[in-house]
Amino acid sequence: MVDHEQRRRELGHAVWRVIRRDGVDHASVRTVAKEAGWSAGALRHYFATQSELLAFAMRLVVERIEGRLAALERAADPREAVEQVLHELLPLDDERRAENEVWLAFTARALIDPELRAQHSEVHDALHQTCASALETLAAAGRADAGAATALQAERLHALTDGLAVHTALRPDLMSPEQIIAVVRLHLDALDNAASPTEPTANA
Amino acid sequence: MVDHEQRRRELGHAVWRVIRRDGVDHASVRTVAKEAGWSAGALRHYFATQSELLAFAMRLVVERIEGRLAALERAADPREAVEQVLHELLPLDDERRAENEVWLAFTARALIDPELRAQHSEVHDALHQTCASALETLAAAGRADAGAATALQAERLHALTDGLAVHTALRPDLMSPEQIIAVVRLHLDALDNAASPTEPTANA
Repeated sequence: MVDHEQRRRELGHAVWRVIRRDGVDHASVRTVAKEAGWSAGALRHYFATQSELLAFAMRLVVERIEGRLAALERAADPREAVEQVLHELLPLDDERRAENEVWLAFTARALIDPELRAQHSEVHDALHQTCASALETLAAAGRADAGAATALQAERLHALTDGLAVHTALRPDLMSPEQIIAVVRLHLDALDNAASPTEPTANA
Repeated sequence: MVDHEQRRRELGHAVWRVIRRDGVDHASVRTVAKEAGWSAGALRHYFATQSELLAFAMRLVVERIEGRLAALERAADPREAVEQVLHELLPLDDERRAENEVWLAFTARALIDPELRAQHSEVHDALHQTCASALETLAAAGRADAGAATALQAERLHALTDGLAVHTALRPDLMSPEQIIAVVRLHLDALDNAASPTEPTANA
């Protein structure tokens, strides 16, 4: 009796251990099979190529992020709640840095492997939607101008977070968690300030 | 008599033709040798591996951008001049989209190939400096708050442009040149508006 879901979960843990220990570029069908104590043949039932392994790893990352977002005890303050959500997406600790490297490796592979494009687009669209929802939350709470909840502003926030992610993967020396958090805060502060410009000019 | 610089230039043109025609992932020592009419052996004098070929292609991209920036007839208006500079870095036409794909392939490769890291850091730092200078120009002209010319704001603008570049490479269907230009304009408008909040409150 094979519990497919159970085996998939086991495999997921093995893939994640290899990625955390050796880096995403060393996660191969061979190393993952060894880690899981499976034969390479059994593993090829789940993924036959390096692209399929990366696709599997990317699905793991999405599940991890969705799990964290679902479990999040959101702050009552809308601005704080938005920061909580964005922080779950950003490489602020070792686990999220590993997720980030999977995302970047997957993204680069999707550029040259048409079979990964549909999955990449799904991930891209989900992240975009998270940014759009964050801006809607802020605008509804008066913590951003109504004009902040537009497609262009969502693209701006999404590009900012993805740019921070790329920079952190490549320049971990420059991009501390504090630096990433400060840039996000700067962006949200600017949206907030634009919503309530300095002081109401009651006497004007 | 071998004119090294002349041969390097020839080779650069051949590399660029292959990248433009077949995409950066198809640029190999073999295809470039064929394009240049060289033997693979002669070519290996210039680059022996795929990483070295990407390093060479990335140097070409930097030279192309530097050449355009040097030739730019900068607008008298500082805001317009800053847009001109940023537009030279962004994938707004076929040539710059090819440059962008080289940058992304090079970036992904640098993540796993330590030999490319130093060159990657140089490119990263040069782009960062361009963003920092743009913000200084705006702040000096009163088109951005003095607080805009900080390291955090430079990182924010740099991350935004790199995020737009990644999105354009992967989602060309969503990211038209007009869309990219509009997001950059939105960002610069926000800096500008923060510098001159609505109306001076003279009567307050």
